[in-house]
Amino acid sequence: MNQARQETIPPNPAVLADRFNTLRYDPEADAVVLLNRAKYPHEREYVFCRSVEEVARAIETMIVQGGPPLAYAAGLGLALSDVNESAYRAAAARLLATRPTADDLHHIIPAALQRALQALAAGEDAKAAILHFVNGEIERGNRVSRQCGAHAAELLDDGDQVLTHCIAGAALCWMLWIAKHQGKTIHLIATETRPYLQGARLTAQCAVELGVECTLITDGMPAHLMSQGMVDKFICAADRITLDGHITNKVGTFQMAIAAHYHGVPFYVLGYDGPDPDTESAEGIEIEWRDGREVLYCAGRRSAVEGVKALYPAFDITPPHLISAIVTDRGVFPPHLIRMYATASE
Amino acid sequence: MNQARQETIPPNPAVLADRFNTLRYDPEADAVVLLNRAKYPHEREYVFCRSVEEVARAIETMIVQGGPPLAYAAGLGLALSDVNESAYRAAAARLLATRPTADDLHHIIPAALQRALQALAAGEDAKAAILHFVNGEIERGNRVSRQCGAHAAELLDDGDQVLTHCIAGAALCWMLWIAKHQGKTIHLIATETRPYLQGARLTAQCAVELGVECTLITDGMPAHLMSQGMVDKFICAADRITLDGHITNKVGTFQMAIAAHYHGVPFYVLGYDGPDPDTESAEGIEIEWRDGREVLYCAGRRSAVEGVKALYPAFDITPPHLISAIVTDRGVFPPHLIRMYATASE
Repeated sequence: MNQARQETIPPNPAVLADRFNTLRYDPEADAVVLLNRAKYPHEREYVFCRSVEEVARAIETMIVQGGPPLAYAAGLGLALSDVNESAYRAAAARLLATRPTADDLHHIIPAALQRALQALAAGEDAKAAILHFVNGEIERGNRVSRQCGAHAAELLDDGDQVLTHCIAGAALCWMLWIAKHQGKTIHLIATETRPYLQGARLTAQCAVELGVECTLITDGMPAHLMSQGMVDKFICAADRITLDGHITNKVGTFQMAIAAHYHGVPFYVLGYDGPDPDTESAEGIEIEWRDGREVLYCAGRRSAVEGVKALYPAFDITPPHLISAIVTDRGVFPPHLIRMYATASE
Repeated sequence: MNQARQETIPPNPAVLADRFNTLRYDPEADAVVLLNRAKYPHEREYVFCRSVEEVARAIETMIVQGGPPLAYAAGLGLALSDVNESAYRAAAARLLATRPTADDLHHIIPAALQRALQALAAGEDAKAAILHFVNGEIERGNRVSRQCGAHAAELLDDGDQVLTHCIAGAALCWMLWIAKHQGKTIHLIATETRPYLQGARLTAQCAVELGVECTLITDGMPAHLMSQGMVDKFICAADRITLDGHITNKVGTFQMAIAAHYHGVPFYVLGYDGPDPDTESAEGIEIEWRDGREVLYCAGRRSAVEGVKALYPAFDITPPHLISAIVTDRGVFPPHLIRMYATASE
């Protein structure tokens, strides 16, 4: 859709559509304030992190999750460091060590560190330099989300039943909101996404806020619904996109992509600001193994018997031949050509 | 394995390996006594059903589940009917209406009804005739399970990592137990199987009782583990097998079968006593839609936000080209040739 049409879209009512709703630096408290995504929306708790370590632990325990949001939180967290070079370097290393898979963190922290060290060297306010940079990145991320969502909305048809997995974030909110204001009725089918239930909590809540009908299913049901002709499109996000068109996303995405390909259901990836320029192919992605015990519990209660172990690979990798297109703020790319993002115009 | 070798296998310690451990008619209480599978093994509660209606509701609420066990419970339940023809016919109709997908119920109830009516006509004890028939079927089912498990054990190699879904029942217990006594170390990988968590509860408990190492994963993880070379075989049961080689089983099986086929992982079905002679192909299977609200809760707690709906197709159908073999008490069949079961010897 062109810019003129987009300007007629009312403000997006979904909390997750604007990253400043869920994470910000509070100058009075000198704290990074995070909406606790491990509890939201069952509880609306804001967590005040007053040190680099507290921000790092908030990322590790998924109080903030999602590639860009956790990167923004880490960036703001760097501003809580002591103001000297060695402290900044140690803080950056701590924040980078929180989670390995999504690429945003690994771009924002080195860039924010560079701003801090440049400011220090110039005798300027390093903390202000970090906050200026990271807040600018959050603003840019909000614009990217809206543009990506607008391009994705163009791929939807009135009456579509759209399957999604985990929480595809601000771009999903914008896709649904813009499609709605284009007069398209979209029915969202969301996997609950065990073990953290991002689908049953975050995605479902976005749909409720946007006035989009949403049906939840368990993570084992997508292929059956496809076989019954109940899924028109499968759309999710990506924590990292490689230059050769692989995507990594919440574990389960790969299985659903195989099922979509088997059934001829298009699979579109909300690719935000495109591939990671530093990751050529899948070998360059480190899949995070989280604590397997998280699988033994559901909503805080033990769901499994005693005496068994569990595994929790947090992400999986989907190869380009299973992907129909990657949708970015700069338009829609076939996965094998996502490298062209770098030279595309906005 | 031959009969001589099987006789050296010690008694199977898994509770679910012998159906009489979990369901029986108690003459003193004049009740059908059921191990409550909705709570087991977190709680070991035995439910006393004192009427046909109580047995029917126990089946509908999954106090007893699994194709053969729920059929046996229904058969024993028929013995709780008033002793006259119209009462028996009404009781049979009520019990048949509980669940549509698995075929065992639809064989045992008409056959038990026939025994009852024949006894009535001959002036004999109709209740005793029902119990004699159904207890004989349970004994036969136990033998079938052991034979099926013995044939399946032959397909396993020492060191295999075997993926399973839901609870594959007594044959799974026998497969694991016999393989263990053949000196094979098997590692079971069980999906938790939302929403009822049969994997996290029942399958995991069987593994613990059998001394087989078991790792739990969520229902979204199988394809990723396959891609990492962590799955040697995928083995599950079937609630109904068609004469042309389709199987229906707990929803999620189809998605895992597609992923197994994609990765070249063999998929073996524990087919117990073979195909349903009354079901030619997939069109003849009614997939049960259970109450979608069951998906909105996990282990008794609301897991989803308010304002959304949910769907719960309880089963899905896997076509024969995704199945490597169907293992029965009469041996191992390619799915397209499962019709030959009828003329095979035990």
